[in-house]
Amino acid sequence: MQEAQFIAILWLIGVLAEAMTGALAAGKKQMDLFGVVIIGCATAIGGGTLRDMLLGNYPLIWVENWHYLVAIGFASLLTVIIAPVMRYLSKLFLAIDALGLAVFSIVGAQKTLLLGFSPVVAVVMGVVTGVFGGIIRDILCNQMPLIFRKELYAVISIITAGLYVFLSQWQLAEWLNLSLCLTLGFSLRMLAIKYHWAMPTFDYQTGSDPHLD
Amino acid sequence: MQEAQFIAILWLIGVLAEAMTGALAAGKKQMDLFGVVIIGCATAIGGGTLRDMLLGNYPLIWVENWHYLVAIGFASLLTVIIAPVMRYLSKLFLAIDALGLAVFSIVGAQKTLLLGFSPVVAVVMGVVTGVFGGIIRDILCNQMPLIFRKELYAVISIITAGLYVFLSQWQLAEWLNLSLCLTLGFSLRMLAIKYHWAMPTFDYQTGSDPHLD
Amino acid sequence: MQEAQFIAILWLIGVLAEAMTGALAAGKKQMDLFGVVIIGCATAIGGGTLRDMLLGNYPLIWVENWHYLVAIGFASLLTVIIAPVMRYLSKLFLAIDALGLAVFSIVGAQKTLLLGFSPVVAVVMGVVTGVFGGIIRDILCNQMPLIFRKELYAVISIITAGLYVFLSQWQLAEWLNLSLCLTLGFSLRMLAIKYHWAMPTFDYQTGSDPHLD
Repeated sequence: MQEAQFIAILWLIGVLAEAMTGALAAGKKQMDLFGVVIIGCATAIGGGTLRDMLLGNYPLIWVENWHYLVAIGFASLLTVIIAPVMRYLSKLFLAIDALGLAVFSIVGAQKTLLLGFSPVVAVVMGVVTGVFGGIIRDILCNQMPLIFRKELYAVISIITAGLYVFLSQWQLAEWLNLSLCLTLGFSLRMLAIKYHWAMPTFDYQTGSDPHLD
Repeated sequence: MQEAQFIAILWLIGVLAEAMTGALAAGKKQMDLFGVVIIGCATAIGGGTLRDMLLGNYPLIWVENWHYLVAIGFASLLTVIIAPVMRYLSKLFLAIDALGLAVFSIVGAQKTLLLGFSPVVAVVMGVVTGVFGGIIRDILCNQMPLIFRKELYAVISIITAGLYVFLSQWQLAEWLNLSLCLTLGFSLRMLAIKYHWAMPTFDYQTGSDPHLD
Repeated sequence: MQEAQFIAILWLIGVLAEAMTGALAAGKKQMDLFGVVIIGCATAIGGGTLRDMLLGNYPLIWVENWHYLVAIGFASLLTVIIAPVMRYLSKLFLAIDALGLAVFSIVGAQKTLLLGFSPVVAVVMGVVTGVFGGIIRDILCNQMPLIFRKELYAVISIITAGLYVFLSQWQLAEWLNLSLCLTLGFSLRMLAIKYHWAMPTFDYQTGSDPHLD
């Protein structure tokens, strides 16, 4: 059970870090404190919530355990207070966010496998857990989701969740599987930021839209 | 059962008023009549629908009872016809909308408690019911949700749902609880409009985004 | 069972065509390949997914049968490769999209009736299946949903689903019902494009918003 506790702690760190990125995004749009809390919550738990709604897996974690919601709300409001300091901590923050991405992807895949769904669905749900919090944040802020255009993020979620599911099929010891996937996901994300790795983009600029001609 | 009927009538008035604010928002974006009906429906029942989907509480009210949908659709289309008159009725409209906010917040919290969820979740679901119709409306209209930046709205939903849940724990007579919460929510909203009460905003303008540096 | 196979094939063609319109929309926003796949999937299966989530009908089709997801992902990526050719195929594409609209509307209504819901809900769910993929696509691309402003699209979904439900109540042979509705929906959409049929729009431009005065 020690791995379960270890991953739970990492998950909580990731959730709180995501709440803070959400709060900062709300601050960039000059939202009020209610907006900050809503965007913080949606960023932190939006991905996991969407996963469980897609799987019909009720009750949702934060409905069953409201302490998470309160912690996330406080983390969002705390961000408002410590915002002036945060730009000096941006490297630390990036690292925590990278950890969160890896943990969310693994936890999302793990839960889906435990519910008895297929490996492909588990990878998809790992990605949903890892990246949809940020997508929901951007929709609420009325901006195009960043992860569709920036350096590698979602692909790292796919690789991390994919490796976890693959090794699970091979009955690898859970602690070894978790360690490998966490290390891989975290390292890849840090390298992607450092070297500006990005996916190729698809540029289809034309006046003739087949959908609307 | 008389309180139940009383609150049901107020709820219906609130739903129809919300449908009309949705239809007006669609008109500002020069949408066609289909858009008007969709935005009207999403504004009127989006909050309650999201609440029930988050709680896994099926079937949804309007799926079980389609008469609501038809009434909401008609209210949306009626708005198109009476739009020229509506600006003379704007004070009345604001009052109905304030009433709707209070009723939605109370009903959302009440239903959640009846389903056996915790008081904190009941308050959260009161707020979801009260404000997410407007958030969904703004997302569909491709504009930043108004309630994240305008005078007190969501906070009144929190206070109203919070008071209802608090008094419910103390076994206050339902009719007294409803009367108090309705009066408080309605009055606060009207005062917030009159005196332009607003939440403090969080302004985080900077080129250095810790998330993307 | 032959009608079931026939409609399943048409449905698959429609799903893949919708994935391609989603991929093109992503290309117009210069998204990366991950964005292309996400938008392709959301466009193709977003409407049906929302329908089943509103009805509480689990497991979702693509959760139970992940092959669809893989096929949709490949169709999205294929679009990137064949994009230069697609503008010469725009007429073909429009026809497939029109077919997809009719099939989705019918299948959405059919499934809802089979689950035992009322005729009105079946029509609504036919429309949700037919048009919400495109609405979700536009929200993810941060643009106002096209179908709220363009030539007849959603109304054809209403008519097609409505006719299917009406004829189902009269116990018309399923193959005859399917043929009639498919022909009607497809023809109406092609005519709407050719003659630029559009819904009247609601233009409510004013500085005095009753909601926010």
